[in-house]
Amino acid sequence: MLTLYYAPATCALASMIALEEAGADYEAVAVDFRKNAQRDPEYLKVNPKGRVPALVTGRGVLTETPALLAFIAQSFPEARLASLDDPFAFAREQEFNSYLCSTVHVAHAHRPRAYRWADDEAAMEAMKRKVPQNMYDCFALIETAMLAGPWVMGERYSICDAYLFTVAQWLEGDGVDPARLPKVAAHRQRMSERPAVRKALARERSAQS
Amino acid sequence: MLTLYYAPATCALASMIALEEAGADYEAVAVDFRKNAQRDPEYLKVNPKGRVPALVTGRGVLTETPALLAFIAQSFPEARLASLDDPFAFAREQEFNSYLCSTVHVAHAHRPRAYRWADDEAAMEAMKRKVPQNMYDCFALIETAMLAGPWVMGERYSICDAYLFTVAQWLEGDGVDPARLPKVAAHRQRMSERPAVRKALARERSAQS
Repeated sequence: MLTLYYAPATCALASMIALEEAGADYEAVAVDFRKNAQRDPEYLKVNPKGRVPALVTGRGVLTETPALLAFIAQSFPEARLASLDDPFAFAREQEFNSYLCSTVHVAHAHRPRAYRWADDEAAMEAMKRKVPQNMYDCFALIETAMLAGPWVMGERYSICDAYLFTVAQWLEGDGVDPARLPKVAAHRQRMSERPAVRKALARERSAQS
Repeated sequence: MLTLYYAPATCALASMIALEEAGADYEAVAVDFRKNAQRDPEYLKVNPKGRVPALVTGRGVLTETPALLAFIAQSFPEARLASLDDPFAFAREQEFNSYLCSTVHVAHAHRPRAYRWADDEAAMEAMKRKVPQNMYDCFALIETAMLAGPWVMGERYSICDAYLFTVAQWLEGDGVDPARLPKVAAHRQRMSERPAVRKALARERSAQS
């Protein structure tokens, strides 16, 4: 039995979608960011970083979305969520996920979490002003050079699709018009029709109410 | 035959160390950041992101350090650079590498590359001021909660050690006194005695001269 600690509208959605795709038996526990519950001493025992996602397994807690996604794919090989027998194809998937976590997620985070990187208000505002351009630039590269279609890696659905869908949910809030990114928009639509994605989104909504 | 595009003092050192540890047959090509060669049209054909590292393989180009490290480990299994037969242990390694790329490298980048996240000079200065504290906080978590010792994952050397050593090289430049992090300092010393690390550093130095 796995337990996923998550919060709505965060990157934890990617792992939840992957768990649903895998048909995994898991419990989802919402961490209430509105109450800053990610900094509660109890939660810091689960994840000392004070962030989500965190996946509690029989052998210990795992964090960081790319690690969770690869772990879910390797733990449920019959779901075929990653290229487990082809190091080059697997590396392509890790490359995509690394780009999302180290560049795209970071570009986004300068809007809601600019305080991480500067202490004064004017600097935080300057960072926020640049978010729409940075997010557009990131997604323009995805649109033109990374998203093969219909899925990220082409004909084969993978953990990359769950992660891209999750990060693309932030575009509107970050001031990017999704109509400027037609391939990404079509991918979001395609994803939103998958039963696993519907289940994960419904689970998120139930936590928010 | 593999070709690694790198620049001195960047995270590309991690992949170079891993290639040396694996005994890989590879060519190293320096990209001259002083001449902004990472933005040359010729290099952008190799890596449209305009960054290093990029690893040219027989099947295409791979980028992003965590992806390259896992690829090198999987391509040279006899070097035992990752836990290839244990999804949980492998996930622990990916978790560590994801933390370095998405949090620690990003904390560092706000000093030399603050222009990525804001346009005005005062905001960039505010970001730079916060780098010593952020880098110290990141490494304090590594020191107390992640670096098992003698290697990152305990008794077994892995790709995580190459990556940690690389990122720890930035501490002094980022205004952190390494003496505050005795386990990290001891790990650096231990790493610097490995033949593969010496070879990689010598290769870097020859490119700089």
